[in-house]
Amino acid sequence: MSEHPIAPHLQASFDRQTMMATFGATLVSAADGRAVIRAPLMPGVRQQHGAGHAALAFGIGDSAAGYAALSLLPGGREVMTAEIKINLLSPALGDWFEATGEVVKAGRRLSVVRAEVVAITGTARKTIAILQGTMVPVDPAP
Amino acid sequence: MSEHPIAPHLQASFDRQTMMATFGATLVSAADGRAVIRAPLMPGVRQQHGAGHAALAFGIGDSAAGYAALSLLPGGREVMTAEIKINLLSPALGDWFEATGEVVKAGRRLSVVRAEVVAITGTARKTIAILQGTMVPVDPAP
Amino acid sequence: MSEHPIAPHLQASFDRQTMMATFGATLVSAADGRAVIRAPLMPGVRQQHGAGHAALAFGIGDSAAGYAALSLLPGGREVMTAEIKINLLSPALGDWFEATGEVVKAGRRLSVVRAEVVAITGTARKTIAILQGTMVPVDPAP
Amino acid sequence: MSEHPIAPHLQASFDRQTMMATFGATLVSAADGRAVIRAPLMPGVRQQHGAGHAALAFGIGDSAAGYAALSLLPGGREVMTAEIKINLLSPALGDWFEATGEVVKAGRRLSVVRAEVVAITGTARKTIAILQGTMVPVDPAP
Repeated sequence: MSEHPIAPHLQASFDRQTMMATFGATLVSAADGRAVIRAPLMPGVRQQHGAGHAALAFGIGDSAAGYAALSLLPGGREVMTAEIKINLLSPALGDWFEATGEVVKAGRRLSVVRAEVVAITGTARKTIAILQGTMVPVDPAP
Repeated sequence: MSEHPIAPHLQASFDRQTMMATFGATLVSAADGRAVIRAPLMPGVRQQHGAGHAALAFGIGDSAAGYAALSLLPGGREVMTAEIKINLLSPALGDWFEATGEVVKAGRRLSVVRAEVVAITGTARKTIAILQGTMVPVDPAP
Repeated sequence: MSEHPIAPHLQASFDRQTMMATFGATLVSAADGRAVIRAPLMPGVRQQHGAGHAALAFGIGDSAAGYAALSLLPGGREVMTAEIKINLLSPALGDWFEATGEVVKAGRRLSVVRAEVVAITGTARKTIAILQGTMVPVDPAP
Repeated sequence: MSEHPIAPHLQASFDRQTMMATFGATLVSAADGRAVIRAPLMPGVRQQHGAGHAALAFGIGDSAAGYAALSLLPGGREVMTAEIKINLLSPALGDWFEATGEVVKAGRRLSVVRAEVVAITGTARKTIAILQGTMVPVDPAP
């Protein structure tokens, strides 16, 4: 699905996010200020009506935005989410969810990011959430 | 820990949120526009450095805010998150996380909510995230 | 600048917003879920360093998003801002500021909106702020 | 109204914000991570129904949060708003509006802030808006 291979340090960082494994999420692409994450609607990620919990759309949207930001930094840097806001447009119902994160402005101290989360049912795609937030580049933990 | 028992319809709604079970979260209290949810730092909820993923603080903060709003509605109603924003103050490190949601303004069409997430390590408590958002009362799915 | 004339009820509503006159702002276009507002950097709208105050970018961004939402409603309805969030990307310096609002999802009870604010200096354009929020359709005041 | 005099560098910074003069706003207090700004409902700050425009509550809330953050920094520093979100609870109707900003977490690189805006009519007080955001300490412009 990805146009070019994911840089090993981005994939390694993603693989250490155990929340992504819990969500069954995979990193589809991450390069040039843009990243895509996909996750299915698993039994263990639901709200009280059986749709995906807001934390699912939030989680893959936040991580997609984070890897979008990280893709613009030299290897060895990290990013942390300073803040992020989600508007939920429709219940998270579908076979798969796909979050696309993008960098709106890359800065030395702060990067402003956006993400969009789409529900995929067969071949139908429906936007279910949009996010807007701030990532902070940090030095890696020693 | 709760001052009075949780109303059965609130507990039943919480128990249907499989995301809360995945997070190992429990509903500590929910009454009078205020709700508390607790969750441990389990192996499967982490970001790349081993701290809790932003989706953990978000998820329990969002649900605490939602049950705070739901506690003010007559039984049989439901709430959905329209939007919510999280500021992350410190890495989510600790033995437990406790999210306290509160209703700032209850409305017929919209309820404005806030939540605070605290990390608990032994007897020490540290605020790691604050949330502000909007819940929408909805009729239950048929 | 507008491709087609602004509907009289949208222009009349804008003209009642005295804040827009205070900002020297004009409604450039408003149709089909999209609206554009322009304002100069006047002496009375600045922060402590001489750039436009955050309330200027916020104000024209919020109103552009509101008229984008209103452009999709039948005449006689109104919208109110329920909540909106702004990320400021760069200081508000320029000859003019142009806010473009768009509807991401139009709903019966809530409309989700975005706006972008661009600073224009001569022919150069620079995005200085992005907004994401929620408009609520309301019945007009009697 | 203030418990102790406002530090001259905070008052001087406020006085350079021409937007505050345009809003008829005064800095009531600013010390120890907390600041209060007051403004009347003037003719030139309204939305289409005659209530205060969202940019008024936003503007005094944002500045109150900013001076709350600045009150904790050594003289000569400045702060910029990175992002801020407002939830509007009720129409901005009243004789006066009072915004109280507070620092939730002061950091070297980012400060997380909140503000509450109250409408005052005679002796009645009603919360009309709450804000949550991020301030960035910056070196002063040369």
